[in-house]
This record gives sequence, C-alpha cells and structure tokens, in this order.
Amino acid sequence: MEKIKPRTLSGFMELLPAAQEQMERMMQILRETYALYGFYPLDTPVLEASDVLLAKGGGETEKQIYRFQKGDSDLSMRFDLTVPLAKYVALNYGQLAFPFRRYQIGKVYRGERAQRGRFREFYQADIDIIGDGQLDIINEAEIPSIIYKTFTRLGLNRFKIRLNNRKVLNGFFAMLGLDTQAGDVMRTIDKLEKIGADKVREILIDDCGTTSEQADEILKFITIEGNTSDILQALEGYRGKNEMLDCGLEELSTVVKYLESFGVPSDYFEIDLTIARGLDYYTGTVYETTMIDHPEIGSICSGGRYDNLAEYYTDKKLPGVGISIGLTRLFFVLQDKNYLNQNPPPAPADVLVLPMTEDITPAITLATRLREQGVRVQLHSEKKKFKAKITYADKLAIPYVIFVGEDEVKNDVVALKELATGEQTNTNFAHALTRIRQGLAARAAGKVILDSEL
Amino acid sequence: MEKIKPRTLSGFMELLPAAQEQMERMMQILRETYALYGFYPLDTPVLEASDVLLAKGGGETEKQIYRFQKGDSDLSMRFDLTVPLAKYVALNYGQLAFPFRRYQIGKVYRGERAQRGRFREFYQADIDIIGDGQLDIINEAEIPSIIYKTFTRLGLNRFKIRLNNRKVLNGFFAMLGLDTQAGDVMRTIDKLEKIGADKVREILIDDCGTTSEQADEILKFITIEGNTSDILQALEGYRGKNEMLDCGLEELSTVVKYLESFGVPSDYFEIDLTIARGLDYYTGTVYETTMIDHPEIGSICSGGRYDNLAEYYTDKKLPGVGISIGLTRLFFVLQDKNYLNQNPPPAPADVLVLPMTEDITPAITLATRLREQGVRVQLHSEKKKFKAKITYADKLAIPYVIFVGEDEVKNDVVALKELATGEQTNTNFAHALTRIRQGLAARAAGKVILDSEL
Repeated sequence: MEKIKPRTLSGFMELLPAAQEQMERMMQILRETYALYGFYPLDTPVLEASDVLLAKGGGETEKQIYRFQKGDSDLSMRFDLTVPLAKYVALNYGQLAFPFRRYQIGKVYRGERAQRGRFREFYQADIDIIGDGQLDIINEAEIPSIIYKTFTRLGLNRFKIRLNNRKVLNGFFAMLGLDTQAGDVMRTIDKLEKIGADKVREILIDDCGTTSEQADEILKFITIEGNTSDILQALEGYRGKNEMLDCGLEELSTVVKYLESFGVPSDYFEIDLTIARGLDYYTGTVYETTMIDHPEIGSICSGGRYDNLAEYYTDKKLPGVGISIGLTRLFFVLQDKNYLNQNPPPAPADVLVLPMTEDITPAITLATRLREQGVRVQLHSEKKKFKAKITYADKLAIPYVIFVGEDEVKNDVVALKELATGEQTNTNFAHALTRIRQGLAARAAGKVILDSEL
Repeated sequence: MEKIKPRTLSGFMELLPAAQEQMERMMQILRETYALYGFYPLDTPVLEASDVLLAKGGGETEKQIYRFQKGDSDLSMRFDLTVPLAKYVALNYGQLAFPFRRYQIGKVYRGERAQRGRFREFYQADIDIIGDGQLDIINEAEIPSIIYKTFTRLGLNRFKIRLNNRKVLNGFFAMLGLDTQAGDVMRTIDKLEKIGADKVREILIDDCGTTSEQADEILKFITIEGNTSDILQALEGYRGKNEMLDCGLEELSTVVKYLESFGVPSDYFEIDLTIARGLDYYTGTVYETTMIDHPEIGSICSGGRYDNLAEYYTDKKLPGVGISIGLTRLFFVLQDKNYLNQNPPPAPADVLVLPMTEDITPAITLATRLREQGVRVQLHSEKKKFKAKITYADKLAIPYVIFVGEDEVKNDVVALKELATGEQTNTNFAHALTRIRQGLAARAAGKVILDSEL
C-alpha cells in the first residue's frame, strides 16, 4: 500500500507525551485556581456563524480567520474567547445571574504567518467577570490576585503584574486638549519600551500632531518613576484638573489599596503608566504581566476593564473585567527557556506491575488493589525480556516496579523496587502502599515550573 | 448600532453554567480514571492537512468532513480521534515507548444532518493501547475494567458491557465456507437486535448469498444464550473445526477469566455473539456498553482490538485496542433522561462573602484566608440590596454566605449562614472553616449521575 507521509501542520503544537503530561498539569492548576475564585467553567463551540463571530468586523484579525462555506452556511473558527463570551451572555442573558464569572480554556485559531513560537492553533485561558449595567471597582482589584495565585501555583516566581488605568491616561490627554488624538497617542506610548523615548516623542509630534510641549508633558507623565506610593503621590499633583483623570486616580488608588488584602505581595505588582493595551474597548484598569528575566517575551497575561462586552448583540450594558493567558505560547516559552521542572520527570504511572507467573491473576489482583487506593498502575503483560520491561519503566520515568513471581505469590509478599535508588524490598501490601505513597508525596511537592525566588 | 442576533449553530452543544459544571466534573473523572490505568494524556490539533486526515479515504464519513482551503492549504477538521492518533504514533514512532497508552478527550466534527440528540461538534473520550508489532491479550481483558470503573465512578450503575471476539465470528463463517461474504454477514447480524431474526435470515439468503441451511446455522450460533460460562461451554462444541475460531475462543476465554481479578463484577458483563462492530478494522475482542434501562440509545462506549493502527502512514505493524465514549451525546442523554444529580445542585463557589462595611478590607482578608484553605469563594461587592445578594447566592446554589459587618469585625467573629437550613452562626474562623468543610464533604459524596442499583 502506498503510504501518506504523516505530518502535523506548521503552527500547530503537538507535544510528546511527557511534555503533554506537564501541559495537562498546568491546565489542571488553572482550572483549580479559577474555581477557587468562584468562576464557572464555560465551553463554547469552536465554529460559529461568520456573521455572529465577525459582528465587530474589520481589523487585522479578520484576514487571519479560518472561514469557509459548508453547504449554505458561512462558518468561522473562533479567533479568541471574548467574542464567543459576548455572544453567550447576550444569548443567555435571562438565564444568567450577574455578576457572571466564567473561565474558559480553549483553542482559538489565527492563520498568522508561521514563525518560531507563533501558533495558528493555540489555547487561551480566559477569566471574565461580567456585570449587568454596572460592575464594582473591587473586581478590578481582585484580578491581580488571581494572576498572582495562578502563576505562583504553577511555580513561577519572578514575574511582575503591571497596572494602569485608561481613565488616568484618557483624562490626562483630555487635560492637554488631545481628546481626538487619544487613541493614536495611546498606541504610541504603548511602544515606549520597544522603541524608546526619543522615537515616541518623534511619532507624537509627526504622526499624532501634538506640539513639542505636549509631547514633553506626555513623556514626563508616563515616565513618572518610583514605587506604587511614589507614583500615586506624583499623580495626586494632577488632581482637580480633569474629571476623568480624577476618577481614574481614584480607581487606581482603590485597586492598589486592596491588593494586599487580596494576598498580592507588593513586590509582585507595580503601576506602569505606559501600559495602554492597544485595544480600544478597555476603559479602566489594564493589566500586563511580564517575566522579569524575559521581558522580550512580552506580556504572559493581559487584560483589563471594559464597559460594553456585547454591544454588537444587545442593547444591555454589560461591563466587565477579564484577563487572558496565551497558554500555548507560554508553554512554548517555558519549554524553550528550560523552566519546566524535570525533577521528578513526568510519568504516566506510579507503579509498573510485572507479572512473572503463568497464570497472572495475582499480578492483576495487585494492580487492581493499588488502583483502588488511587495509585496509578500500568500492568506490563507483554511477552518481552525482563530487561526490556525495566528499560520501559525507565524510559517512562515510572518510579516503582513491582514483580509478581511464584515466590512472591507463595510467600504473599510484594517485591517493590524503587528505580531511582535501585533499592528492592520484599514487604506486605500495606507497607508497600505506605512506601509508595510517601515517595509519591515527595515527588508531588515539586511544581510544574522551576524558577528562582523573586 | 444595528445588532446582530446572537445565536449558536444547530448541532453545536453549548451548556448553561450549572450544566457545564457537571460536564466539567464528568471530564475530570474521566481524566482521573484513565490516569489510574497509566494512560498518557494526548492532545492533537483540530485541523490537519486533508491528505493526512483522509488517507484512508472514501466512506460515509468523508462527505461529512468540514474541509476547506486556506491559502494554498487543503485543511480538514478531525472527525474522530483515531486517525490523529495513528498519525501521531507513525510520526513519533522513534520517540515513543511501547505499549503506548494514551487517552484523549477532544472535540471532533461531522457535518451530519442536524436532529435532536445528534451533534456536529462533539467530544469523544478515547483510550488506546498501542503495541509495537504485537500486543498481549491481557490488554483486551483490562479494557472492560476501565469501562466499569469509569461509569461507576460517574455514578452510573445499570449498564452492561457486552463482549465478543471477531475471530470467533470470522472463524465460524470460514467454517461454513462463507469467507468471502464474512463482511456482509457480519454487518447483517449486527442488526439482529434492531430488525429481528426473520429479517436477518432473509437478508443473509437474499443479499449475502448464503444457503438457508447456512442462514439457520448462523442464527443458531449468534443466538446462543445463557450466562458467560454457558456460552463459552456451547462454543467449546465448535472447537477443532476451524483454527481461527479456536483462537478466538481462546482469547474470549482468557478475557473472561481475568475480568474478575480486574475488578469487574460478573453482573456487569456478558458475551454477546451478535456484536460485530461494523468497522472492518476490528480483529479480536469487541466491546459495546448499553444502559439497561435505555437500550434504544445504543452503545455508550464501544471499541475493540485492531491489528493495524497506522497502515496508511507506516509499514510498522501497530496493533492496538481501544474504546471511545461519545461524551457530548452521553451528556445529552443523561440530561434528557434526568440522570444528572441535582442534589446538591452544582455551584460555582462554596461561600459567598458579603462585605457590609465602608472599608471592605476585612471581607477581602476573610475571602483570601478561605481561599488559602481551598474553599471556593466569591466576594460580592456590588452596590446592591442585601436581599438581591441572597437571591444571587440562591440562584447560583452557593451553600454558604458569610456577612462581614462592623459588628463582626469589632468582635472578630464570622457570621456564617447555611442557605439550605437558614441557620446562622456567629463563630470564629477555625470553627466556621470546620463547619464549611464538613458541609462540603457531605455535598461532595454525591456522584454526578444518579442511578438505581443494578
């Protein structure tokens, strides 16, 4: 038979088993952490009607959409989890209770130019809190605590959550009389870190049409430095000059004030007045999260407050706040920069049971008993040499092997071998189980990500 | 602004939050159960190159594929998880250790005619064990124990795992001289339950070209009745007449022999000689699982042994055994037939914390402390009436509410209200935590599915 060459599309992540085990563990931690904050899980289709998905229309995104006809239907694969959420909330408005908190971990699709570390199919892990008509500022203070908890539970320590408030920026621009250019100015200062102050100044004057005095004022403002209270202090100097700026300052102070009681150590966040988040729909607090040792990667978790989640579908005003982790890209980076904990290496089972009798009932019974105690067991019943089976356990990093031979059956003992030490013990079931559990507890103490202290 | 009517495509399941919570719990049980048997998690792309995905070609399936062009690429959405597995194993052969055990829970796509209970996007939950060149029969005996464990952990009790062996059938047909018609005969007897013996006899003679004696022999054979040992006993009567039949009988006896030590009670399985599984690639043990009270639903978990997983991609012989649960359809049926446990109703949080002070630091601190203890907490900080907040807790079925007012702060007490009883206690943190944990443990004792005993 002629063979088709097996291959996976470029830009589509497909992990080897051990790496997938780590990805799975990461996802499980995300699910558990989000649940801790009272978020519902949500699952929406990958395919939607194109007119629904592209209601907002235009933009860079639209070109990247996987869109096609099937019969009479014009279909598109989702490119984020926000639009499907907007559709869901508008569609089910009457059956939801607000604030509606949901998380969703799912694949999204963008036909971008393929390059290393860029994916066309990738997981996003999103949380959002949606209000009905209004949503309290406290929710904006809670979000950084979820970011903090999520990443530290994964094992990441050296990261910084950067906060800003769009009202502060918009108010400041209005104060300078730059209302109409606010969007362009915002997109420009967002690039400060990348292109530097001189270049930003140039673009502000040449492209955004500010005067050189305005450009200087803007640069002075966004480069206010110091710790959180220094910056808030400096911002107080602008109070009373613009209503929106005052409101943003109020919000920013409230968020900062409550962060500590939400459990976020002060080392883990900072105010960064350059953060604008390009997207127009953010209206309040905005977030970015950077790895301290890898700023070049950009933000690993971003989001913010918006006022109108579902304006394309409904007249209801649905303000919300949310963040998104680009999980596939994050995993790629962690793998690439050697952040994934390999000690112990991920294993698909805790114990490999090796039957060595003609009738293998005793080995099966033992495997069944161990599984009933929650131990993950593989039974290796293939007709292979003993050495090949040990190599198999080694290759899969299965920590324990139990041999079930005639002697063990006759004497009712469990022959337990720990592969890391080579130590073998003949003992009874209860003792073997205790030893295994102790070993597994020690192994489970390690986190998925291995990072230095902050 | 003109609004787009929000809608979800027909044939695409999108659950309300409480139902999604139950679906998520089911998936988590599947993941944990599969892990107990030493299966790796696996995740492959939803999109594949069409020539790779459709290597096998032809068949009913091909018409249903979501296939489209994007730039120069001819792409298809996966229609099952078996073809992607075959591709994965062929592609990564050198880096895998065999037997390779993987589970995958993922969405697949089939553009079927939309009708109630039929889905175009649906989850499959698959497990497979793949051997390199050979795979021991013991694996075929282990599979029913995974089916049994999975469904009973979900809470389903009244189901039956039905076993057969394709070698028994093929050997028997060969014995009758019906080698060439074996496929047609198999597909016909597969319909016995649906169309009855007379109709099967008619098709065998008219369409499959058997003599009426052969048709009688076939019907006599497949309607052998009794318990497992009765049937094996009756089959012994055919021994020695055909090598393949003998081999199949050996395998079937081995599977049955070991089922008990694998922990499957004899009530939960039976040999059913009518089960053939239409697909041609099954070569040994085949499985179906039926709900005793809803046979009309068909099999809720099926699969079997095959000899060549990846013959379209590689010359390596990769025999395997696997099963698949059509999770979306199963969930639909469970919901439709009222099998989902609503006592207690699913809730996104365990405790709703209600701040009732101006500075809400104490409420946030309490929420943070509870979360650190693993309690799922929502903080309700919206500016709404007290009654509206209690209604919110009721609507979301959150079992506990804690009020944090001036008095509670002053006296350092926790005001804990259990919504089911209306009972309110003022106590300290440690006691409140104990009460909550006891309540949650009682709630967690219930399974996702509520079913009578077998």
